[in-house]
Amino acid sequence: MRDFAKDHSALALNTATLGHNVESQGAGWSPERVIDACAERGFGAITFWRREIGGRAVEIGERTRAAGLSVSGLCRSPFLVGPLAPPTRQAVLDDFHSSIDMAAGLKAACLTICVGGVVAGTHSMAESLKRVAEIIAEAAPYAAQSNVTLALEPLNPVYGGNRSCLVTVRDAVHLCETIGHSAIAIAVDVYHVWWDLSLGVELKRASAVRIAGYHLCDWLADTRDVLLDRGMMGDGVADLKALRRAVEEAGYTGPCEVEVFSVNNWWKRDPNDVLDICVERFKAVC
Amino acid sequence: MRDFAKDHSALALNTATLGHNVESQGAGWSPERVIDACAERGFGAITFWRREIGGRAVEIGERTRAAGLSVSGLCRSPFLVGPLAPPTRQAVLDDFHSSIDMAAGLKAACLTICVGGVVAGTHSMAESLKRVAEIIAEAAPYAAQSNVTLALEPLNPVYGGNRSCLVTVRDAVHLCETIGHSAIAIAVDVYHVWWDLSLGVELKRASAVRIAGYHLCDWLADTRDVLLDRGMMGDGVADLKALRRAVEEAGYTGPCEVEVFSVNNWWKRDPNDVLDICVERFKAVC
Repeated sequence: MRDFAKDHSALALNTATLGHNVESQGAGWSPERVIDACAERGFGAITFWRREIGGRAVEIGERTRAAGLSVSGLCRSPFLVGPLAPPTRQAVLDDFHSSIDMAAGLKAACLTICVGGVVAGTHSMAESLKRVAEIIAEAAPYAAQSNVTLALEPLNPVYGGNRSCLVTVRDAVHLCETIGHSAIAIAVDVYHVWWDLSLGVELKRASAVRIAGYHLCDWLADTRDVLLDRGMMGDGVADLKALRRAVEEAGYTGPCEVEVFSVNNWWKRDPNDVLDICVERFKAVC
Repeated sequence: MRDFAKDHSALALNTATLGHNVESQGAGWSPERVIDACAERGFGAITFWRREIGGRAVEIGERTRAAGLSVSGLCRSPFLVGPLAPPTRQAVLDDFHSSIDMAAGLKAACLTICVGGVVAGTHSMAESLKRVAEIIAEAAPYAAQSNVTLALEPLNPVYGGNRSCLVTVRDAVHLCETIGHSAIAIAVDVYHVWWDLSLGVELKRASAVRIAGYHLCDWLADTRDVLLDRGMMGDGVADLKALRRAVEEAGYTGPCEVEVFSVNNWWKRDPNDVLDICVERFKAVC
């Protein structure tokens, strides 16, 4: 395993940690200010959210690299199916392509895919995943020609109904194998998989599947809100070292991206303090 | 698969569906009134909660059987580890024994075990499950001599931090195999496992593990409260037929117990209507 106490250049910031995934949350720093603050602290990369980027993808991507960082990712595709997806298949594909274009403009290492919940009327995760596979297979060639990796992210089973019928690494690996396209990879997020004691076995089984991202936070024992009450690393009950070992033993050597949705705690703090604490915890407990 | 449209004698009521698991919820019917209402509608069994029983275990058990029903279970053991467990190991064991005594008095088919969350300081589901295994192994001989089956129930991963470090059927099977005692079995609850596409495979793998209970409800796509907003069968997104097929193919032939925690919907209704709808949905969609 990499030793982050000595070298924290693998540390990446997901700007959701500063509230930038939700309108009027956080301190509202510009991308430029975030880039400079991360560069000062030795972060290696940043993952942005679409709402921060607007029409400035190329500019912000270049600005990030000029500061010595890379763009580790873009959040995210539209929900592809289920109750929160755009209303028609064409609308889904159009927005999916827009998100791919933005990721390409940023030269982001990947685009995060949140697949969406159970398709109305199916009462079936399995059937819903078939629809997901069709849509991703349709978009994959466009992603490949745009040089964008699609990172399928299994979400915590608590979101199975509305946000993601993809809820385990096992199913994500299966989905990748089903689609069988070089533009497809998976993302592993502590918040979503921390409970899964089969993670290491499933990742090892998946030798042909690429891991495109590893996301850090912690699971608070007394989670108050399953969407916006994530913990900072070290404040919860997840076995962070064991989780990282599992992804590294499966060959992952990329950035480790801190992504803490926290409307009542971290988003209320000074971003300078939040970033300092990210560095400290990354070196100490991740 | 059994055909419930023609014969609903496998239907059981968990009295949590009437709010009886929480103080001052529901209409407050006495056990006797619940028994008679279930008997009138052709239910085959009832699972009670400890707070309803008090010192009347033998009496209520006999009353249930006199009405032509069996006692399918008793909810539940104390949390064995984690933040919600009694403060000392002795206090855990004492209350565990009390719950076994009550199940024995009722002649309940099983006692539900909710194992509790991650042990403070461990940051580890795996370590916490080792402590759980020790405590259950210690209580198992007492359960066996009391003729009580201990039904280990994996809970939804959303409860992993505080209520149950046992979150998958896979891990429950492993725990049973680790303890290796004839008094130990597992319970499968739709709310907790509906998302798990590996359920059938894991249950088949577990030929030596007994299934002591199958619990019905539904997962609402837009779940508002992960504790008290369960859906009635048919109102959510779970694949109820596929789930039942998985447990029946693993050899389960016992009662199917409706357990709907629903503070803002079903607990506010007339229990007569709730029970009628349980029967209707059981025959139509389970």
